[in-house]
Amino acid sequence: MVIVMNARASDDEVASVTDRVTELGFQAHLSRGSERTIIGVIGDERPVDPEVFEALPGVERVVRILHPAKLASRDFQPEDHVIELPNGAKLGGGQVSVMAGPCAVESREQVEGAAEVVARQGVRILRGGAFKPRTSPYSFQGLGEKGLLLLREVADELGMAVITEVVTPQDVPLVSRHAEMLQVGARNMANFSLLKAVGDSGRPVLLKRGLGSTLDELLQAAEYILAQGNRDVALCERGIRTFETSTRFTLDINAIPVLKQLTSLPVVVDPSHATGKAELVAPVALAGIAAGADGLLVEVHPNPREALSDGAQSLDPEGFAGLMDSVKKLAEALGRTAA
Amino acid sequence: MVIVMNARASDDEVASVTDRVTELGFQAHLSRGSERTIIGVIGDERPVDPEVFEALPGVERVVRILHPAKLASRDFQPEDHVIELPNGAKLGGGQVSVMAGPCAVESREQVEGAAEVVARQGVRILRGGAFKPRTSPYSFQGLGEKGLLLLREVADELGMAVITEVVTPQDVPLVSRHAEMLQVGARNMANFSLLKAVGDSGRPVLLKRGLGSTLDELLQAAEYILAQGNRDVALCERGIRTFETSTRFTLDINAIPVLKQLTSLPVVVDPSHATGKAELVAPVALAGIAAGADGLLVEVHPNPREALSDGAQSLDPEGFAGLMDSVKKLAEALGRTAA
Amino acid sequence: MVIVMNARASDDEVASVTDRVTELGFQAHLSRGSERTIIGVIGDERPVDPEVFEALPGVERVVRILHPAKLASRDFQPEDHVIELPNGAKLGGGQVSVMAGPCAVESREQVEGAAEVVARQGVRILRGGAFKPRTSPYSFQGLGEKGLLLLREVADELGMAVITEVVTPQDVPLVSRHAEMLQVGARNMANFSLLKAVGDSGRPVLLKRGLGSTLDELLQAAEYILAQGNRDVALCERGIRTFETSTRFTLDINAIPVLKQLTSLPVVVDPSHATGKAELVAPVALAGIAAGADGLLVEVHPNPREALSDGAQSLDPEGFAGLMDSVKKLAEALGRTAA
Amino acid sequence: MVIVMNARASDDEVASVTDRVTELGFQAHLSRGSERTIIGVIGDERPVDPEVFEALPGVERVVRILHPAKLASRDFQPEDHVIELPNGAKLGGGQVSVMAGPCAVESREQVEGAAEVVARQGVRILRGGAFKPRTSPYSFQGLGEKGLLLLREVADELGMAVITEVVTPQDVPLVSRHAEMLQVGARNMANFSLLKAVGDSGRPVLLKRGLGSTLDELLQAAEYILAQGNRDVALCERGIRTFETSTRFTLDINAIPVLKQLTSLPVVVDPSHATGKAELVAPVALAGIAAGADGLLVEVHPNPREALSDGAQSLDPEGFAGLMDSVKKLAEALGRTAA
Repeated sequence: MVIVMNARASDDEVASVTDRVTELGFQAHLSRGSERTIIGVIGDERPVDPEVFEALPGVERVVRILHPAKLASRDFQPEDHVIELPNGAKLGGGQVSVMAGPCAVESREQVEGAAEVVARQGVRILRGGAFKPRTSPYSFQGLGEKGLLLLREVADELGMAVITEVVTPQDVPLVSRHAEMLQVGARNMANFSLLKAVGDSGRPVLLKRGLGSTLDELLQAAEYILAQGNRDVALCERGIRTFETSTRFTLDINAIPVLKQLTSLPVVVDPSHATGKAELVAPVALAGIAAGADGLLVEVHPNPREALSDGAQSLDPEGFAGLMDSVKKLAEALGRTAA
Repeated sequence: MVIVMNARASDDEVASVTDRVTELGFQAHLSRGSERTIIGVIGDERPVDPEVFEALPGVERVVRILHPAKLASRDFQPEDHVIELPNGAKLGGGQVSVMAGPCAVESREQVEGAAEVVARQGVRILRGGAFKPRTSPYSFQGLGEKGLLLLREVADELGMAVITEVVTPQDVPLVSRHAEMLQVGARNMANFSLLKAVGDSGRPVLLKRGLGSTLDELLQAAEYILAQGNRDVALCERGIRTFETSTRFTLDINAIPVLKQLTSLPVVVDPSHATGKAELVAPVALAGIAAGADGLLVEVHPNPREALSDGAQSLDPEGFAGLMDSVKKLAEALGRTAA
Repeated sequence: MVIVMNARASDDEVASVTDRVTELGFQAHLSRGSERTIIGVIGDERPVDPEVFEALPGVERVVRILHPAKLASRDFQPEDHVIELPNGAKLGGGQVSVMAGPCAVESREQVEGAAEVVARQGVRILRGGAFKPRTSPYSFQGLGEKGLLLLREVADELGMAVITEVVTPQDVPLVSRHAEMLQVGARNMANFSLLKAVGDSGRPVLLKRGLGSTLDELLQAAEYILAQGNRDVALCERGIRTFETSTRFTLDINAIPVLKQLTSLPVVVDPSHATGKAELVAPVALAGIAAGADGLLVEVHPNPREALSDGAQSLDPEGFAGLMDSVKKLAEALGRTAA
Repeated sequence: MVIVMNARASDDEVASVTDRVTELGFQAHLSRGSERTIIGVIGDERPVDPEVFEALPGVERVVRILHPAKLASRDFQPEDHVIELPNGAKLGGGQVSVMAGPCAVESREQVEGAAEVVARQGVRILRGGAFKPRTSPYSFQGLGEKGLLLLREVADELGMAVITEVVTPQDVPLVSRHAEMLQVGARNMANFSLLKAVGDSGRPVLLKRGLGSTLDELLQAAEYILAQGNRDVALCERGIRTFETSTRFTLDINAIPVLKQLTSLPVVVDPSHATGKAELVAPVALAGIAAGADGLLVEVHPNPREALSDGAQSLDPEGFAGLMDSVKKLAEALGRTAA
């Protein structure tokens, strides 16, 4: 940390800050400039809240030097982390992995229809929502455990792994019984009780970035899971809130290479939620791959016009086939493989 | 809802949209303009997801006409709702109510110190965090149940009510035993399992706006609680994420009069989290009152320089006395009372 | 400036950065921490672009220590600056100054009607747009010079000063002939040619914050004007772009006390543009005053229902009288005067 | 337009709105729903400001149906527009065009060095800034006319076209003499005087999106140029302001396919400004192409470590060669050509 004193800070104030620094077990390193005095804090700053210093008289502001997430950082773990699922599907390490399926599980016919469509294109991880966090209490909230069972059955028939969202700590054991991979949704990225519970689950976790969350906060949310001893965390960029209204969210494409620099965890893009419109899914998905993403999370519905939720952003079978064709060409051009 | 067809939509596409509208139990009302056909959907649109229509061919976009939250709307309940706590403290209905106390409960001395400071200024609702949602897993996470007991004891000595945050559905019964009012934090605004649990608790709830959430979403989150039969919901503006970096968040002051128009629920401002800096708390708190807020949620610490969390944004006893003095003058000038 | 080297920076890279630092006339001050080396740059950093160092190998990031605006800073000029207009109206230094009038000048009757309404309430500065920057080329673009003459005549009749917008450097001499104070609109905040031109004009300038601009950038835009030798600059917060859509912009209320700390220039709030709705103008205006603003810029129209632009956000005569009544009470309660 | 009346609007208020609609030359089309009355406005709504109706009593809000930009819309001009420069370089229509060169012109050696590097990779349009809009008045402001002459000479030697920024209407004739294509920077996107001047210049224009501007506003800014009779407008996404601080701006990748749908004008991506960091330029540039952009605007410096501005985001010769190699492979994989 670097503590910047304000222009009018007295010598006593500076001394009392350096005292506090050493009292907390750090070394203080003083630099007196022409207009400001700054105090370097030498030591592992991560457990210390910058406010501890900001609250002292004469302090203008405090600048963190270290990224607050340690286990999640590439400094700590330089090699790309690869998540392996029981059916052999992998996430991370250069190949392009596609997870696809319906937004919400509605019926056996629908899940089967969607799963067959995506399996035919080589997809080995079936996504589908059984517990749906919905903005309005009047919207369809998912089939719950019944939905989990449908996903499991269909996936087993096709040799696929299941990834599905878990929304509350109590449900983690139930969902872990039926799914190979747990998803923490954007609205729960900072639900720290849930992060600890999935950290303890023994299941790989896909952690979606909150719609108002910075990349630093995303890495710290991952740190909650990693700190429970669970190494299998993948991060998902799914669009953030901005002033632009022509799309539901704004996919932060810069986030892909930034995350790949900062962490060795796999990074996935969700073009369906980031755009909210089926016709934008393919170009944004391809952009994600071109920017270096390790995979995609895509909504596919056998008949989007009858979907109970998120129909407008779901690809139909033809649209998905077209996307996968482009993904494969693109991956090849970039010297990667797609599955 | 109004469905806008795109410029090239065929008659068949228009017909198939109107069919879907009537199939779902609405009346369709067609307007053919010079460049676009629009279809009015007559009926209570709230249970229907706009995507149901957006997914149909030829549809350009769908515009909601009704606010999706019903119970929370002033249309539904025109009179200001007043929340009454067992000790006689009130929230809503024109007076200015102040809830104050430490960010996190650290020790009996600290809670007592803070509570005495705020009680001396006439505050009747003691705030304090026992379960702390923290961005980093390495930060102080609160004292948990022990903290609740400390809050309860100190509040009882001073005849105060307790408001404290609950972070997970399992903890709702425990927290409800010790606190008169439950707080749902910004990071949990869209934690729908938690919203349902506090809705069932029988306790008044202070619901904080998510840092990336619109006012419409805040009202829909309130709707989750109201839909469980709990009428005692207050809303809290505590700052949103914007590009400005000189303060931690940007208090959306427009939100105060907008919410007062849209809903009859009490509206509270949290100047401590919205600014992150003690010296900005008073001006922003006064602004909130001037804009029409029903109350304030303020962090006070007997000695901010030793706080374990959020010291930089906590008022010291003198600062809090100064704020309350101004609040009273301001309330009086505006024809309101403060407590 | 503080230069943070990345975790893998070599000694050679560190040495080559410190060489560059001294080469540019600064002293380098090295701190080796456990995980990062940081280099303090001692000297007046303002003329140096941080990218000069960011482009060097091994550099992770560069943190500015000094605010880049010097003349605009309170460090440089500690006393509140007061702008005095020829008719005796003042802006800054504790009193609350109101500038009011129509959005766009439409006709003599309209300007006269609005001016009489606001003069009756004690307002001494008439605002009105003759050159209107409009988002669409098909919207009413203002009356130009004819509008300036109308403003001037009506203001002279009532002993008022005129403030009006100038949109291009060529028009600065013309507008300066007819108006006592020049306004630079939000869309031109970073039009540096215009800033230099108004800096040279000898007229006081009201500089509006850009809708996507930080407070640091606002102060640097003011610096362009001040650097031309023009001390009479006032700053205006008029709402920024955020994800919230219930109001046209989000007034950044935190900006008021932050600016009052950073600079001694007067700070004004524009509640009309910040909200876009007449019924929100009064609460947001009062909030601005309560937060410490030195004045208001308010749109008033004798008959908003017939306005050619911005009718929805213009106060009618009754609304304006109500606002001024509250402003006076509020100013008095806060120990200030209003005019 | 659709006018939504509020829940308590009286029959008289509805009648007075429909009167105003017909008075302005439109047809009014009334729909009475269960909770709201809505009024469709039939006719070309573009010249009418929604506020004309929003200011009427009983109106809750007004929804635009047509995109306010007409000439810029794909409805108006369905075929992709291709801009052709005198040296045969093209922009638009499926191929990938790269414009590259230094941020600011610093010296003949520097321009020549950069131009040779980019020409060697097949680039036919040389970019370079002679007039530099800089946030701080103390930063290097460009060489002005001398810079233009250097660009011209070097471009002529290599058979390249020149694109360069113009910052004020007075400079349009001068810049038009020396450059084949004019650039309007992000900070001037809503400088309507400048837009009209470049519209009159007879030169193709690259219009950059403002950092706080919506896509609708970008299209309306383009409309200003088109309305002067200049068809040769290209749009540039260069990053918007969001809450994320790990990159200078957030490239709105969704904007690429959205713009390609809404308009037939060429769409270009500027990965240098959007990220602010050289190591992020290539992944974000490739993402832009994969999303469908017609071209790139890239900063290249023969020796970024000595650049006077934007060194941190400039590619060195090796980095640029690597980028172009990937661009060509990517374009080929997508069935397009790159130059």
